[in-house]
Amino acid sequence: MKNPLIDSLVAGDAKALARCISLVENRDPRAYDILKAAYPRGRSIPVIGVTGPAGVGKSSLVDQLIANYRAAGQQVGVVAVDPSSPFSGGAILGDRIRMQRHGTDPGVFIRSMATRGKLGGISAAAFDVVDLMNASGKDSIILETVGVGQDEVDVVKIANTTIVVLMPGLGDEVQAMKAGLMEIADVLVVNKADRSDADKMEAELASVLSFFHREGTWQAPIIKTIATSGQGLEALVAAIADHGEWLKRSGTGGDRLLQQSRQRLIDALEDRILNQILEEGSDGFGVADKISAIAKRTIDPHTAVGEILAHFKSR
Amino acid sequence: MKNPLIDSLVAGDAKALARCISLVENRDPRAYDILKAAYPRGRSIPVIGVTGPAGVGKSSLVDQLIANYRAAGQQVGVVAVDPSSPFSGGAILGDRIRMQRHGTDPGVFIRSMATRGKLGGISAAAFDVVDLMNASGKDSIILETVGVGQDEVDVVKIANTTIVVLMPGLGDEVQAMKAGLMEIADVLVVNKADRSDADKMEAELASVLSFFHREGTWQAPIIKTIATSGQGLEALVAAIADHGEWLKRSGTGGDRLLQQSRQRLIDALEDRILNQILEEGSDGFGVADKISAIAKRTIDPHTAVGEILAHFKSR
Repeated sequence: MKNPLIDSLVAGDAKALARCISLVENRDPRAYDILKAAYPRGRSIPVIGVTGPAGVGKSSLVDQLIANYRAAGQQVGVVAVDPSSPFSGGAILGDRIRMQRHGTDPGVFIRSMATRGKLGGISAAAFDVVDLMNASGKDSIILETVGVGQDEVDVVKIANTTIVVLMPGLGDEVQAMKAGLMEIADVLVVNKADRSDADKMEAELASVLSFFHREGTWQAPIIKTIATSGQGLEALVAAIADHGEWLKRSGTGGDRLLQQSRQRLIDALEDRILNQILEEGSDGFGVADKISAIAKRTIDPHTAVGEILAHFKSR
Repeated sequence: MKNPLIDSLVAGDAKALARCISLVENRDPRAYDILKAAYPRGRSIPVIGVTGPAGVGKSSLVDQLIANYRAAGQQVGVVAVDPSSPFSGGAILGDRIRMQRHGTDPGVFIRSMATRGKLGGISAAAFDVVDLMNASGKDSIILETVGVGQDEVDVVKIANTTIVVLMPGLGDEVQAMKAGLMEIADVLVVNKADRSDADKMEAELASVLSFFHREGTWQAPIIKTIATSGQGLEALVAAIADHGEWLKRSGTGGDRLLQQSRQRLIDALEDRILNQILEEGSDGFGVADKISAIAKRTIDPHTAVGEILAHFKSR
């Protein structure tokens, strides 16, 4: 199958990459062929997730990581998962602006994605975008999320190395989430480390981490950074590289890849089945009638689903 | 069908309610019969969602709402959606403790749920829990979420009235989310209103709200509260009641019910199809082989899903 767009994508053309991502995001019918052609062209490259509560300085840190990888001659892809309205679907760019100094560098490709209102969550679309960036020849991909909700989990699903960014003096409720955050962290960053209670926080985190650590597994290092000045960035880059080496050496990378592959299958299944049933409209699923019966409480949702599935299978 | 557990549930027995919720959460085979029997027993009651960023005082506010509804003689159900690890699945109770003063009141039933690692998200299970509480005779149900991620959207899916709680002096990144938050707010609360910049924040919010407001739709009121002292609580309770009246009067309540019914169908579909395909194991879907082929990049996820679906339909 000849497809000049795919040829340009694989050749590393930024416009072709942008076009392919748009087709995928818009669920264009051509997207399937592109994804199918791009997938086997992907290489085994680091996909680095950066997550953590709002306001800790994730975007500044990503900005520094980009600069660091660029200085090492790498082509860098960045997927910034933005909070957005569930209804309007528009991404709020917010402090993406901080990364704009790389906007004119042809070695950096930055794409924002909205998180809401997608069946199958962000991960289905983000996986595809990461594949497209991979096929276009990027050497590293950074995936940044904003917030502390489901997106965090989705980052873990996609990334090889997950960086959890915290800072001294977070509120109570955010502190309560630290256990969950620390379980997903391959590298823990205490940013804004010039604040007075940074050492105290580092000590607390170290004690909690050692409590949770199991023999023979990766022990997440704690890196103190000041993203605005670049302090601690070399140590962070080294920690990411160490974790990548460990993934290979320990075989954990292979396990993680299998988990990710399973997740991709689940995401794609959700996407395909639901869209077929819900979007086909008038073809006999009787979805609209069932919805109104559920609203009237004349049928329960589980019985309704049983009927829809029986029909789905019979077609 | 005789089922003493369902009879006890409908009679308002707290132990039966707790047992039914556990069966649903654990996907016990008996859960389906219980949900089927409970569903038509549900009444049209207020389901009040409380959401907003971490640390703004949502739990304290919920505590005050419970006290208020109890004083009016209502039976109250509370579903507290907790951040939890995607891996261990355990809910971190955190400041749920603040609500414990109602723990010994038989007129209040509080249940925490974990948010992570569930196919179909929190909403599938939370919808079912709300139905069970409804069937057990609760007069109001309060659904509280922690954090500013996907859970927020899920609250909107389930609640009739969504309260978004903010406070003066939130960080930049949280501020950037306000547009999304305000779109889902039926009532906006500025908590910790004794802080110096509360009036300024109220004025800003009012100006943004009026910018977004469309003629003939509900205009979300802004209520200033100090949850720890109870200040502003009467105004908040009145605003919730006003919104409930407006839902009925305007017909919007019926539209919202249809949207919720559609969401229930989607959630239940995701749950049933995926579990059938993924958990049936060795029966011919070849899921494990496909996952390892995806990992080796010898098949792409979309093609793999096409093959699985063809098989699913042929059975």
